[in-house]
Amino acid sequence: MTRIIMHGCNGSMGQVISELARQDENVHIVAGIDLSGNKNNYYPVFNSVAECDIEADVIIDFSSAAAADKLLKDAVKKKIPIVLCTTGLSSEQIESIQESSKKIAILKSANMSLGVNTLLKLLQTATKVLNGADFDIEIVEKHHNRKIDAPSGTALALADAINEVLNNEYAYQYDRSALKEKRNKKEIGISAVRGGTIVGEHEVIFAGVDEVIEFKHTAYSKAIFAKGAISAAKFLGGKEPGMYDMSHVIG
Amino acid sequence: MTRIIMHGCNGSMGQVISELARQDENVHIVAGIDLSGNKNNYYPVFNSVAECDIEADVIIDFSSAAAADKLLKDAVKKKIPIVLCTTGLSSEQIESIQESSKKIAILKSANMSLGVNTLLKLLQTATKVLNGADFDIEIVEKHHNRKIDAPSGTALALADAINEVLNNEYAYQYDRSALKEKRNKKEIGISAVRGGTIVGEHEVIFAGVDEVIEFKHTAYSKAIFAKGAISAAKFLGGKEPGMYDMSHVIG
Amino acid sequence: MTRIIMHGCNGSMGQVISELARQDENVHIVAGIDLSGNKNNYYPVFNSVAECDIEADVIIDFSSAAAADKLLKDAVKKKIPIVLCTTGLSSEQIESIQESSKKIAILKSANMSLGVNTLLKLLQTATKVLNGADFDIEIVEKHHNRKIDAPSGTALALADAINEVLNNEYAYQYDRSALKEKRNKKEIGISAVRGGTIVGEHEVIFAGVDEVIEFKHTAYSKAIFAKGAISAAKFLGGKEPGMYDMSHVIG
Amino acid sequence: MTRIIMHGCNGSMGQVISELARQDENVHIVAGIDLSGNKNNYYPVFNSVAECDIEADVIIDFSSAAAADKLLKDAVKKKIPIVLCTTGLSSEQIESIQESSKKIAILKSANMSLGVNTLLKLLQTATKVLNGADFDIEIVEKHHNRKIDAPSGTALALADAINEVLNNEYAYQYDRSALKEKRNKKEIGISAVRGGTIVGEHEVIFAGVDEVIEFKHTAYSKAIFAKGAISAAKFLGGKEPGMYDMSHVIG
Repeated sequence: MTRIIMHGCNGSMGQVISELARQDENVHIVAGIDLSGNKNNYYPVFNSVAECDIEADVIIDFSSAAAADKLLKDAVKKKIPIVLCTTGLSSEQIESIQESSKKIAILKSANMSLGVNTLLKLLQTATKVLNGADFDIEIVEKHHNRKIDAPSGTALALADAINEVLNNEYAYQYDRSALKEKRNKKEIGISAVRGGTIVGEHEVIFAGVDEVIEFKHTAYSKAIFAKGAISAAKFLGGKEPGMYDMSHVIG
Repeated sequence: MTRIIMHGCNGSMGQVISELARQDENVHIVAGIDLSGNKNNYYPVFNSVAECDIEADVIIDFSSAAAADKLLKDAVKKKIPIVLCTTGLSSEQIESIQESSKKIAILKSANMSLGVNTLLKLLQTATKVLNGADFDIEIVEKHHNRKIDAPSGTALALADAINEVLNNEYAYQYDRSALKEKRNKKEIGISAVRGGTIVGEHEVIFAGVDEVIEFKHTAYSKAIFAKGAISAAKFLGGKEPGMYDMSHVIG
Repeated sequence: MTRIIMHGCNGSMGQVISELARQDENVHIVAGIDLSGNKNNYYPVFNSVAECDIEADVIIDFSSAAAADKLLKDAVKKKIPIVLCTTGLSSEQIESIQESSKKIAILKSANMSLGVNTLLKLLQTATKVLNGADFDIEIVEKHHNRKIDAPSGTALALADAINEVLNNEYAYQYDRSALKEKRNKKEIGISAVRGGTIVGEHEVIFAGVDEVIEFKHTAYSKAIFAKGAISAAKFLGGKEPGMYDMSHVIG
Repeated sequence: MTRIIMHGCNGSMGQVISELARQDENVHIVAGIDLSGNKNNYYPVFNSVAECDIEADVIIDFSSAAAADKLLKDAVKKKIPIVLCTTGLSSEQIESIQESSKKIAILKSANMSLGVNTLLKLLQTATKVLNGADFDIEIVEKHHNRKIDAPSGTALALADAINEVLNNEYAYQYDRSALKEKRNKKEIGISAVRGGTIVGEHEVIFAGVDEVIEFKHTAYSKAIFAKGAISAAKFLGGKEPGMYDMSHVIG
């Protein structure tokens, strides 16, 4: 039984995770951390990990970049591992996470779904095989019309995974409308489509001579991210200090 | 039997049309116009329509914007209708085409395929029905890695057809990476993917609350544009002066 | 304000409609009809329309074919229009519906979503234009792994709408694995994919020489069917006896 | 320089390979084998490998199942390796191939394209990761309206590669229209779409709870199969007796 502190318990992802965890007999949310309004949670809610006096094996964090510094400090002090799902962190914060991971286990991921993380793995293999044969790589992502950032953190994570195999020699191209020139061989185009309530769709295209291979992930609800976060929490409880990611969880 | 002058006969589209016309007993290419290299054409080739002394019912033009002015002048003088498939024309040239259409029939289109022109028509109906119900509209086009312009002329034609129904109140959005804000209701996003030898793919997305409708056209070879140009030539021969487009041809 | 009786109020669609109606100030569910378990509904629940003593303008039905006969009898007696969303009806029942529609307004549809109904309309136009040019038509639908019937009622409705334009001369082909022969020109292939929790995806393919046009509808939640049913109820309240469908609602 | 005998040189694939080989300075077609009509080939054509008196390093075969027995006998006698691309072989013929591979190198593949063979490899990894998490697997393939067999040999090869990872415990389902029951967990649905001139499209769908991953390969011309056959020929020349497939070529 893994005992979880849900950091950001009153946000929309916090609530989805709380509901899903309730149906899973191998985990238990023992406390929540949030500053915002009461949501009739089935566990006590505190203002910070420091103030929480309930013992736990792991923290799941789906809050905001603003809350990350205090979270890290408190978790290190109490020696509790963190599944860190907050995006939009500054480079100082990412350094601070690296530093903290010398003292506690931290799992950080741009996308918690099993599907996207499987894709990340397969794309690296595909890039190795296909790039030698002169395939161009492009990414198209689609999200709802309220999403602020573009391209999505997941699209960038997919591009980074591919670029790693290509010795990070490829630049990301977000807009070709002003260029009036042929495609540069050493680029990965990333397009962001926005509309309606689309939960999240990512398509990676390998276009070669007379053939195209596409890899596409479609999310139908936020429950898949909640499920991934809970799997990660089960995995991370009791682990040695260090940086982890979802590839460790899916094995 | 429609007698055709192929203007730009030695270009790649000129050659595809020549081959297709040879297999169609209802048309005959009686002469070609081109300045560049000999291609062993089955018809005599001249430097300009003015120099061509063979009678014809219609001109098909797949040349370059640079050649358009002379073509218009010569065709008006000889009273020969033109199927005008050249893109990238300046606004002065477009005015000059309008002017010329008072004297000869001119059919102008960004994309000659039956499929794309059917789509143009259907999209206007779809926009009328769906836009009232708050659907966001986005376009994604994919072409080969040697294409210079982005987005494609066809993508812009699709957007224009939609925008016409929306009283031309919508702006086109090519890049969201710098914005950091929610989607503007009154925009049509247009994304350009480039890779390999993709002939041409256009996808129009209507994204609403919990449902998405997509319209997609895929071209597998340039022959579909040649076929459309020949259909247009058959249609245009003998027509009254005026501006025409492919919607007149597909009926 | 349209007063609704929700027939089949404790089923999954009945519950989604109840929730959505609560948020719409122009409709009010005044009573429910169901035999199965209590769901803490915000309205009184009766065993049948006959037993319900509350006045209403329209009935929405999302129950089962077994319940349809009694529903029709009771609604005709009380002169209440019905939005009939139940599928899998026998040909006797369909005749009985036709008969009842001489006395009350009945709206019947295989799929209540705005998107699918827009598609039905556009496909008929597309078929007229493209079929003359020798395009083959195929349908692929995808649903969750618990769905019993295949192909879906919506896929059949799409095929029927297309076939109507083709003078109903086309046969539906569900399986080519045993044939070992070229495609018959006068057929519409319909493929049913089943997996996971896919809510519903319908793709209609027009495949011609070197070009393909695809029309695709994706449902992300059952809420779109609930929304359509409520729109239909608003439309149908107070209407003259007769048969109606969603094309009357979307205008 | 690899010297090739093109077996089935006057068929459509034989001609595409001949053209492509002419542009590749590392291979040379030294002779063709065919019984049917003259095609103005740039090499001498014989009735059989036995009658061909020109030395070669490898045979590429794109003929018919009927010609396979004689081909095997002749190649074994002359000790020439074979890239065997003919499909629709009987089980006796497949046994005979196995037997012959003790004496010469034989590379056999249902699909010669780099893309499909990369997919075959990735799908096995995907199946390992995703199947444990309860994803359903389905395949949809699309081909032109003249194709005789359904599903395609490539679709079956993709299914077989997946099934191998699943201990060959899964059955293939070609038609659900008569079943009226929930999807059987241990099946892979395979749907065959036919229309127009579609060269070949294969889509493998992993559908889980609230997420779907799709892998799609699109062929735009037969040249990709020719290219793969030539790569295979370069690879196979001089190899030890044994059975090989494209996974050895792509490495």
